[in-house]
Amino acid sequence: MNPQLNFIFSRRSIRKFTQREIPEILLTDLLEAAMAAPSAVAKDPWHFIVLRNRASLDQLATILPNGKMLSGAAAALVVCGDLNQAHDQELSFLLQDLSAAVENILLAANALGLGACWLGIHPREERIAAVAQQFSLPENILPMAGIALGWPAQESPARTRYNPDCVHLEGW
Amino acid sequence: MNPQLNFIFSRRSIRKFTQREIPEILLTDLLEAAMAAPSAVAKDPWHFIVLRNRASLDQLATILPNGKMLSGAAAALVVCGDLNQAHDQELSFLLQDLSAAVENILLAANALGLGACWLGIHPREERIAAVAQQFSLPENILPMAGIALGWPAQESPARTRYNPDCVHLEGW
Repeated sequence: MNPQLNFIFSRRSIRKFTQREIPEILLTDLLEAAMAAPSAVAKDPWHFIVLRNRASLDQLATILPNGKMLSGAAAALVVCGDLNQAHDQELSFLLQDLSAAVENILLAANALGLGACWLGIHPREERIAAVAQQFSLPENILPMAGIALGWPAQESPARTRYNPDCVHLEGW
Repeated sequence: MNPQLNFIFSRRSIRKFTQREIPEILLTDLLEAAMAAPSAVAKDPWHFIVLRNRASLDQLATILPNGKMLSGAAAALVVCGDLNQAHDQELSFLLQDLSAAVENILLAANALGLGACWLGIHPREERIAAVAQQFSLPENILPMAGIALGWPAQESPARTRYNPDCVHLEGW
């Protein structure tokens, strides 16, 4: 693994956090990183809900099956998309744009010493409905993913899951 | 913009390249970075076609409307997904997984001094069909995006497209 790319290899899903708060400036850093992602035809169809309120985090933890750690997280982001604003109103482009933004947030969090974990919402209908209700989302706003955030209370080594079977030279 | 996150802010879409070749080791670096992305339930449903052959690059340039620069690119990656291998065979998860991998490639390329540009394939049916034919893709393999690669012949300043209207505190 090229050490120049350690900012990628050292990003791991972090599910255990200390009780320490996250300064607001770092959350802004994460949002600046998110909105530096490319988006199809630069439509930037994303929206971000910032959660620091304990009751909100606890409620989201009950909605997302793999999101129990939100109860111990200092903050969370819910990454949403506006289908009306996406390139040609295509769900595929929306998901691609939002996912690039999520990956930027995860890598930025890691670079700042924070831990983060991507929590799936879309395409699970029951999660979408519950999240939309919790945050009073307008009808055109689709929640795609949650991101748990906090100072890591676990260490995971840098790695890649590189698999040569997934690499095809010049064609299949 | 926090300078610790410059590896994100300095990534810009690069569409003009020099004639210089890309050493194979750097392409491997990009693939290691790609496969360090998170994927839903760690299904890693991705496949990557590596293009260095001039005729292949030229042919792909004719297929992708925004991919004319492939004719001047030293290499390209075509990022594909196996719907059968995706979590619950859900297209949404597949697109999210592949997009995180694409963003890793773009950031890794930038960190290595390369230029890169994300070229949309999915959900455009005519592009999917033409790419599947060019590379003899099996029926379950869906091409999502191309990535043009080369040494940059243009400079673009670091930036974010941060928009405070896209940030919502605790709810909509």
